[in-house]
Order: sequence, then C-alpha cells, then structure tokens
Amino acid sequence: MIVVMKESATESQIRNVTQKLNDLGYDVHPDRGVNQTILGVVGDTRSLDSRILEILDGVTEVLRVTEPYKLASRSFKPSDTIIEIQGVKIGGPEVIVIAGPCSVESESQIHEIAVLVRKTGGKILRGGAFKPRTSPYSFQGLGVKGLKMMCEAAKANHLVSISEVMEISQIELMEQYIDIIQVGARNMQNYSLLKELGHIQKPVVLKRGLSARIEEMLMAAEYILSGGNSQVIFCERGIRTFETYTRNTMDISAIPVVKKRSHLPIIADPSHGIGLRDKIIPMARAAVAAGADGLMIEVHNDPDNALSDGAQSLYPEQLEQLIPELRAIAKVIGRTIG
Amino acid sequence: MIVVMKESATESQIRNVTQKLNDLGYDVHPDRGVNQTILGVVGDTRSLDSRILEILDGVTEVLRVTEPYKLASRSFKPSDTIIEIQGVKIGGPEVIVIAGPCSVESESQIHEIAVLVRKTGGKILRGGAFKPRTSPYSFQGLGVKGLKMMCEAAKANHLVSISEVMEISQIELMEQYIDIIQVGARNMQNYSLLKELGHIQKPVVLKRGLSARIEEMLMAAEYILSGGNSQVIFCERGIRTFETYTRNTMDISAIPVVKKRSHLPIIADPSHGIGLRDKIIPMARAAVAAGADGLMIEVHNDPDNALSDGAQSLYPEQLEQLIPELRAIAKVIGRTIG
Amino acid sequence: MIVVMKESATESQIRNVTQKLNDLGYDVHPDRGVNQTILGVVGDTRSLDSRILEILDGVTEVLRVTEPYKLASRSFKPSDTIIEIQGVKIGGPEVIVIAGPCSVESESQIHEIAVLVRKTGGKILRGGAFKPRTSPYSFQGLGVKGLKMMCEAAKANHLVSISEVMEISQIELMEQYIDIIQVGARNMQNYSLLKELGHIQKPVVLKRGLSARIEEMLMAAEYILSGGNSQVIFCERGIRTFETYTRNTMDISAIPVVKKRSHLPIIADPSHGIGLRDKIIPMARAAVAAGADGLMIEVHNDPDNALSDGAQSLYPEQLEQLIPELRAIAKVIGRTIG
Amino acid sequence: MIVVMKESATESQIRNVTQKLNDLGYDVHPDRGVNQTILGVVGDTRSLDSRILEILDGVTEVLRVTEPYKLASRSFKPSDTIIEIQGVKIGGPEVIVIAGPCSVESESQIHEIAVLVRKTGGKILRGGAFKPRTSPYSFQGLGVKGLKMMCEAAKANHLVSISEVMEISQIELMEQYIDIIQVGARNMQNYSLLKELGHIQKPVVLKRGLSARIEEMLMAAEYILSGGNSQVIFCERGIRTFETYTRNTMDISAIPVVKKRSHLPIIADPSHGIGLRDKIIPMARAAVAAGADGLMIEVHNDPDNALSDGAQSLYPEQLEQLIPELRAIAKVIGRTIG
Repeated sequence: MIVVMKESATESQIRNVTQKLNDLGYDVHPDRGVNQTILGVVGDTRSLDSRILEILDGVTEVLRVTEPYKLASRSFKPSDTIIEIQGVKIGGPEVIVIAGPCSVESESQIHEIAVLVRKTGGKILRGGAFKPRTSPYSFQGLGVKGLKMMCEAAKANHLVSISEVMEISQIELMEQYIDIIQVGARNMQNYSLLKELGHIQKPVVLKRGLSARIEEMLMAAEYILSGGNSQVIFCERGIRTFETYTRNTMDISAIPVVKKRSHLPIIADPSHGIGLRDKIIPMARAAVAAGADGLMIEVHNDPDNALSDGAQSLYPEQLEQLIPELRAIAKVIGRTIG
Repeated sequence: MIVVMKESATESQIRNVTQKLNDLGYDVHPDRGVNQTILGVVGDTRSLDSRILEILDGVTEVLRVTEPYKLASRSFKPSDTIIEIQGVKIGGPEVIVIAGPCSVESESQIHEIAVLVRKTGGKILRGGAFKPRTSPYSFQGLGVKGLKMMCEAAKANHLVSISEVMEISQIELMEQYIDIIQVGARNMQNYSLLKELGHIQKPVVLKRGLSARIEEMLMAAEYILSGGNSQVIFCERGIRTFETYTRNTMDISAIPVVKKRSHLPIIADPSHGIGLRDKIIPMARAAVAAGADGLMIEVHNDPDNALSDGAQSLYPEQLEQLIPELRAIAKVIGRTIG
Repeated sequence: MIVVMKESATESQIRNVTQKLNDLGYDVHPDRGVNQTILGVVGDTRSLDSRILEILDGVTEVLRVTEPYKLASRSFKPSDTIIEIQGVKIGGPEVIVIAGPCSVESESQIHEIAVLVRKTGGKILRGGAFKPRTSPYSFQGLGVKGLKMMCEAAKANHLVSISEVMEISQIELMEQYIDIIQVGARNMQNYSLLKELGHIQKPVVLKRGLSARIEEMLMAAEYILSGGNSQVIFCERGIRTFETYTRNTMDISAIPVVKKRSHLPIIADPSHGIGLRDKIIPMARAAVAAGADGLMIEVHNDPDNALSDGAQSLYPEQLEQLIPELRAIAKVIGRTIG
Repeated sequence: MIVVMKESATESQIRNVTQKLNDLGYDVHPDRGVNQTILGVVGDTRSLDSRILEILDGVTEVLRVTEPYKLASRSFKPSDTIIEIQGVKIGGPEVIVIAGPCSVESESQIHEIAVLVRKTGGKILRGGAFKPRTSPYSFQGLGVKGLKMMCEAAKANHLVSISEVMEISQIELMEQYIDIIQVGARNMQNYSLLKELGHIQKPVVLKRGLSARIEEMLMAAEYILSGGNSQVIFCERGIRTFETYTRNTMDISAIPVVKKRSHLPIIADPSHGIGLRDKIIPMARAAVAAGADGLMIEVHNDPDNALSDGAQSLYPEQLEQLIPELRAIAKVIGRTIG
C-alpha cells in the first residue's frame, strides 16, 4: 500500500500518518519527491481499510499495490488448476459443455433432456431444484424431489450433475445428490453461505454477481478457498449496465482477464447473460472463441411450456447444431469439445 | 400486459400468440391499428415471464402495464404506512435519526455511543454484531455477545435498537435482543432469508442492493409482505456506478420516487452511500431536504481506532453539530426531528 | 404509444388525457379493462415526448410500441445493406479486416504498416490525423499532413482508407483524402456533425458512445440517414461500466442485437474496447464468432514507441498470427476473410 | 506515477522498465520491498499513457499519484474561484438561481418568463436557441432569432443570460448576444469545441457528460482553462445508471467532491437530472443542502404546451413556492439566495 501525501502536506502531517501506520504494525518507507512525499507501507495490508489513512490530514490518496485476494491469484499458484469430477476435467484443454433445463420439472423431463445432453457431447447436466425468483408469486422449484430426479437422470446417462444452493440448510442435501454445487449471482456475496462451502469436498461454481467487479468475484472465492475447499470454478453470466435491449451485458472480456489474474477455471453462461434464445448461439460461440473453459447452456425438451426461463432455453435441435460449431471454433484455438 | 406485433406480422402469427395466451389462461383484446396489431392481455400477469411471448414469431415487444409488485404499491394502499416501535414512529412527520457504530466492539464503547445518540436527539441505536466483509481476513463481528451489548445499551438509554441479520439461523437470536432487523444490501435478493422475515413480528429495514433497481427493491419487500409481515422500511445507501471518486453513488432521487410508488417509509444511509466522513454531512442534509423519513448515520466515540469502517464514522462532536442543522432543514419542509 | 391510466383514474382524468392527445393531432383508442383503462395513441408518435403525458393526472405509465428510429430499422428495410467502397463490400458474407495505427506519425510509419495490412489480408487502412485526447497535454495528431500520408499509403497498397473527423470544418478535407469517415465515440451524439455527414457521399463509421444505449446509436444514425446519406456502418467499441480491470466493457451482444434490429452493418473495435494488447486477440476472435461484419484493429510497426495508444496496438507478428485464426472461425459460421 | 512490479519480476525486467522510463525522460526511484519492487517515476507524468508501462513484462500495475488535471485542481489554486458577471457572483456565499424555459419559443414567452424569474429572486435567465435532440424529427430550436429574444428579455429584466452552444461556428453569435456560454452534456468531451471556448472572454458552464467520471469533467475543464479562459463553472445534471424509474441518476455527491478537488464553482440542474416535474422540487432542495453554488431550473409560463421538455418544466407558481424554501435551506448552511 502506498500513501500519497498532498503537495502542501506539512512535516507534522507526514509524521502523524507514519505514526498511525506504525501503531497498526506496519513499517513505512518514505520517498520524498520534488513535489510531494509518498509513503510505502511495508507488511500485509490485505485486511487494512485504506480509508483509515485517506481521511488523515495531508493525505491525498491511498493506493493498493497488492491484490486483496491471495489463494485465488495466479501469483500464489502460477499453473492452471484443473478440477476433476468423475473423469471430467474443468480447466484443461477440453471445453466442457454443461447443459440442461432451468428447473427440474418432472422425472420424464429431466431424463429426456439428460439423454439429449449426453448424445450431443455434453459432460455435465444442469437443473434447478431450489429457484431464486424475483417475484414471490413465481414457481419456486421442486426442492428435494428435484434433486433426486437430477441425481438419477445424471447417473443413468453417465453425466456429472450441477444444481444451485440457496441457503446453508440445503448444503447437506445437495452434497448427497449433486456433484457440483452452484452459487447463484445474487448470492455471490452471501458470506455465510460461502464460508460453509469452504468446508465441503465438492467443487463449487461461483457465478459473478450482477454488479460484481472481477476483483470482488476473486475475493468471494477467497472465502471458499480459505476454508479449505480449493475447487472453485468461476462463471461469467452477464453484468448490469444501462443497456435495455438485452437483459444483462455479458462481459466476454472477463474470460481472458480472469485467466490472467487467477489459476482457477472460468466458464460462461450465455443463457442468463443474454436472456433470449436467438442471441444465445452467437454468444456461446463468442465465449468459446474468447477462451472459456466451459459453457453452461439452458436447453429444454419443450421450451414453449417450460415452467421457468423457457424463453432462454434452446430447442433440442438448436443444441445439436450448436455443439459441432463450438467444437470447430475450439479447434481453432487448440482446444477440444468431447 | 401488452403484446406489440410487428408491422409485418401475419394473421396466423397473431392467432398463434392469442392461442398461447388463451392456453395460459388469459383473455386477449386485440387492437388492430393502421400499421400494426396490439394485443391487450387480460388477467393477472404478475408472475408471467414476458419473454415467453417476446420469443414468438411476429412479436416485436412485450410491455407490462401493471407494476409487478402489489402489497408494496401505493395503488394497493394509498395512505402512508407509519411503523411504530416503542413509541418511535417511522413514516410520520418526524424524521427519525438512527445512529451508532459500524460494529459493536465492547460494552463501554456501545454504552458511550448510546448516551451520545440519546443526547443529540437520536431515537434508534444501530450497531453490527454479524458483519458482512468483502475480505475473509477482516474483523467479522462479536456475534451474540454483540447483540446482548446492543440490547443493554439501547434499553439503558431508552433507545430502540437495530442490527443486521446475515442468515436464517440468526433470526431467532436477533428477535430476542433487537427491535428492528436490518437486511444488508448484499442480501436484498437473498429470497430464503426474506421469506423467513415474512413470518416474524418485528420491523425490517431492507437496504437497497448495490445494483438493484427501485422496482427490484419493491419486489424484494413483496417477499416479506406476502409472508404476513407488513412492517418494511426501505433504505437508500448508494448504488454502483462508473464513478470512482466516491465509493458508491447515493441515489437521492430514490427517496421521492419510492414515496410516490409505495406507502412504506424510506430512510437514507449516507455513511455507506458515500463512504468518507467529510462527504457524509452534506449528503445527510440532502437526504432530509429530499424527504427521507429517517437517517442512519455511523458515529463512533473513537473513529480513528474503530475496528471497522472508522473512515465513514462521524466524530461525536460532528454528530452534535449536524443534528441541529438537519432539524432546521426538516422544519423548512414541514417536518421535525425529535 | 400507449397511455396506461391508474386503477384509481377518474372519468374526467381519462377525458383530459384524451383531449390532450386530440389537441396534439392523435386519435385515441380506449381499452377499458376490469382494473384499469389503457389508451392506444394512433398516429406518428416518433417525435412526441412521452413525458408530456406521463405528468398528467391519473396516468401511471406511457409506453412506446414503435421504435423511435425509422430509416435504420429492419422493419423499414428487411434486407441487409451492403456498403461497397472500391470493390470492398461491408455487410456481405466477407468479414472485413480494418487495421492500422492509432495515429499517423510519419510517412515511413504509415507506409510500412500499410504494406503489412495488405499482406495479412486486411482491406482497409485506419489511422488518425485529428486525435480526440482526454488530456490537452497529449499528442493531438498531425492534421492535414496526416491525411495526405494516409491517402498515399492506402493508394500505394490498394487499400481503402478510414480516419476520424472531429468537427464540421474538417469534413471537406476528409472527403478529399479519405474513403470512409469515422465518427468517434465521444461525438456519437454531436448532432451538428451528424447532420453535416448526412449530406456527403462517403460511408460513415459511427462508433457507439461510451454510455450509449443501442437504441440511441440507431437514433444517431437516423440523423445521417435522414440527411440523405444511407451508408452508415455501426461500430461496437466498448461501453462504460463499473468494472475497473478493463478500460471499457466490450458489449459483444450488441452485434447480434444490431443485426436483428437494423439492416446496416456492424463492425467491432476490440483495441478500444479492451485497451490492453494481450486481451485484444481473444476479443477479436469473439467478435467474429458473434457475427461482426468487420474488425477494426490497431497495429503498429513499433508499438513500444508509438505516439499514442501503443499499449493497445498489436505487434506486426501478432496480426499475422491472428488473421488466419479469425479466418478459420469465420468459416465455421459460413463467412470468409479475404 | 508508480510502477508496481510482480513478485516474480526478474532483475532484467526491472532494468528494462527503468530503461524505458529513462528513455521517456523520467527519473526512477526504486523501492525494493520484501515481496516486490516498486518504481517511483519522477517528472511530469500528466500526459504519459500508463498502459505503455502496464504492458511491459514483469509489471503488475501502474498507479497515478498525481491528479491528471492541473489548472482545475485545488492544489494549484487553494482558494475558491468566484466568477462575476454584471455583479452576479457565482462561487461566493450566495446561491445563484438560474431559471427559464428549455427552448426560447417566442418573444412573449421569453419575456413573460424573464419577468417571473426576476420577481422570484432569480439572477440568470436560461433558454435554448440551438437544441440538441435525440431525434432528428424533434423541434431543433429558433436559432439566431432565439438568441436575440433571450438577449432582449434578459436586458429588459436586469438578468444575466445563458444559452447552449452546439458547434464552433455558433460561438461568435453566442458571444454577441449571450453572457454565459453553456456546453451541453453530450459535448463535454467535444475537444474541438472546448479548445475554442478557451479563447473567449465569457464564462462557460460545463455540464457533466452522462457517463463522465468527475475526473473527466475536471480534465475537460482543463481544455478551456489551458486556452486562457479561467471562467469555468461545472454543472451536475445526472449520470446514466441502470435505474429505469428516473431518466438519469442525479449525483448529488458530485457537489461536495468537486468542491474539495477544485476551486471552481459547481451548480446543479435538477430538471435534466430527474426529468419529471414532481421530483424536481425535492432534488432542488437536496442540491442546495449539499452545497451547490447555484441551481439551474426549467420553468415555463405554459408547460403543458411547451415545444420541448414541458414535462420537466415547473409551473410559475411552483417556482414562486420553491425559492423561499431554498432560501431557508441555504440559510441553515450559512448561505443566501438573493
């Protein structure tokens, strides 16, 4: 951390800031320039609130020189982390396709879709049992029954399963039936939930919050990693901007940025990122072209009658057409799709 | 809800959309204009996902004509809701001052501050026991011990108390010690938590999420209201924008907008909205001038050594100067500060 | 346009709104529902300020049912517009590569780069002569001398040229030396400039403003189109969001959205969208995969010593590697790169 | 400027960055910490593009320690700048009220409004002659005729006048008829226009762009100031956010932030900031309470029939009620309204 003093800062103000830092246990390296003095702060400033210094007389700005996250950063672990679940490897040369319905609706629905996912080359089956809905008047998911259906459909088709957890009390159940636990965008900073997920043995997909900076997503992962669970997969799914023609603005650039800053894998969810079926296909292609380690796509055997998010679910034949295209794009950048 | 057909829409497309709506249980009023046909949808469309229609052939746009929230809306209840806790009325002519530290740190700290709050005219004591922190390496609060200290300090000074709940398992404890339960910005769409708060008998302060539209805040309240708890107080605390000179951008205009759309009270939290002590005072004045029903301000007996958010806590003497100013501004618009 | 009355609206309020609309020359189709009355406004409401109605007593909302733009919309012209300049076709099956330095710096620099662009398969040479810089203390471009250098370098290498216009007085000069006129992001709503460009015979590349909604970009095109110049090419180059790890957030989804709403071509500029060399390559791939009609890329013979934007300019060998990759991706979606 | 090297940076990378900086004419102060090396850059880095360094091997981040603006900054000129026009002082203890219609429509209209403005205590008459409109199909202003009408109405009522300039060619005319030149939000970064305004002798009101950071507004002022015109007045008028219930989000906190960073005055324009008449009054109060040096308010003798922005114009009687309220609020913070 660096404390920049004002040009007009007095000697006594500089001494006061130095004293404050010493009291907090830090060493100070002063650099007295022609125009202004700059104080280098030596020590672990990761949990130091920079505003404590900013508010002191004579200070003009306080700048961080270290990333606030540690375990998630590439400087902590330079090589890519590959997360393996039942032989499926996320973060390696293969781009993993995760597909399935928004919500599990019935045994026959999830089985029919699981067969399709397997056939097209998908490796992981997605499906919601506990649904976060903006309106309390909307369908809220099948709950435990849904988890069991997911579990059976995935096993029967040799697929790995993923589903969303909404609260701490659901974790135990999720662990019993599901292979990968998903944290939704609205819970990205639900710290109580993240802490608990730090103590389980299953991989966690952490979706980027609607207004979360990439740095904050890396910090949220830190809650899980520091608890002992090192299997975190990031997921870009669109951020909130002023644009109104799309539901969210999918930040494709987050993919190369995260790959550079962190050793953990990142996948993309164009279904939620864009929200309308006809835009999902170009965005899926774009995400693979930009280097995503996986794609999470909503598909439904009968989107027109889906109980939730039907408008952003692909038709089965759309998925069957899309995968070979994605495979060809992956090949261009030296990757594969199974 | 209104479905706008393309100018080029065919008769068969119009019939198809009409059929789809009928299947979903809605009546349709077609309005055949010179250029295009518009279909009025009759029935309760509050939980209908408009994208199901948007994706149909021949449709150009789907527009809502009713607000998606109901119990929170002023058309449902035209008169102001006044929430009374031990004689303190929020939403009436008096502007209520809520003050206290970011975190409860010790018995002496919270007592000293409670005395100050009472003396300056504050009616409610704030203080965090469970703290949501961006970094897992930061101070996380005193927990139950903190709640007990809050409870005693408030009672001893004839103040109402407010503190933040972070997860469902804490609700029972909160109910035992605290008068008003606060839902933090990061939990504004933690639907599991909101549902549980719909079943308690205590008022809930619902803070606006960092990237929440006002409409979404009203929808979040709907989760609590529809559970049977009608005592919801909104809190504007700053939204996320591209500006970097302030921590958040406090949306003062949310105050008159919420007052018009909803019958529920709205308070403002300039401490979190702005994040630096020297800007809090002008923003507190602005919030009262714009019609806020209350102000939540962080104050600390020793901000320089606070364990959290010291930089956004006022010094005791600053609070003592501020309140009379706010009282004079309140008077200009026909309100009082106790 | 549709005026939604409040549930509590009185007959006299409905009459008043109807009268106001009649006075403005519109017919009104009332639709009296069970809960509320909706007034359909018949006539060309493109230039009607909806707030005039919104402010009337008894009105709850005013909704547009027609797009505010006309000549730019696909409903006005359903088939793709292909813009041809000296045999180069933008908007057809070929994805056009536009490359060159940020600023023209010298004759040898622009010639050397032009040779490279031609060799790698680029069709259009870019280069700035008049530079919009955030700081008045930065390099402001070579002016007319730069235009002449551009012109010669392009001709000598059988390339089309493009350069940015900053003010009306420069248009005449630009027309003399340059083939395609570019309007920068900061001038997207410089209406005086747009109007003048409506009267020239050269194609205009209109860059999306940093905070422009797609609808506003289409409206800005309307200024040019309605003046008689039908050759407008949109350019996505990143929007402003809260993210701080990238300079802007490139909105890749704008590509399929514009292709659906408008008949005009859209290209992408990943150099400005992302701002750092190492992220440009994945974003260029993503833009082609998402369906862009062209790519504008900054390349420099000596980026480390460029007078402006060196950090976002590719090295020559990077461009030589990138183009074959883009060509392979284009092929996957049935397009070519020359 | 400070260059932060990666923990893994090699000696040769550090030497390379140092060399690059020396080549650019800067001295380097290295600070070798336990974990990483930090290079302090000595010299005027105001026009140095930090990305040139960011892209070098071994560099993790580049931080500015000096503000990029100079003449606008309070460290350059610590005392408040007061701008005086015909005895009206902006930036002193008096809060100046600027009022008038969106557009000048006729002689009688502007005269009638000027009388009202004078009577209520306003000091400056606003009114547009050249109008920037999102749609080319909307009313574009009366042009020169409008300027003349403004000039006469202002003089007849002992008011100072202000009107918006849209392009360089209009400056001469504006100078002839108008006292204060306004640069609209969409032109805040129209550098050609700003440069020209640096050469005139009249005060300039510079409106904040819809997506402009405060820092960029200060930089835009630098274009005018460095040309020799030191009379710049900032104007906060709302920024673009994700909120849809208001037209823009008025950033009231920009007022205290600008007052701290710059010596120049700042006024607020709640009419454009909020866009609907019924919210303007609370926002006007809030702006005065937060310390604005002036208020720009749209008022119309007949808002229901205004040719532009009628919905955001106050009725005459609303202005007459508002001013005494603002005066009372100003008094609370030690200021006056004439």
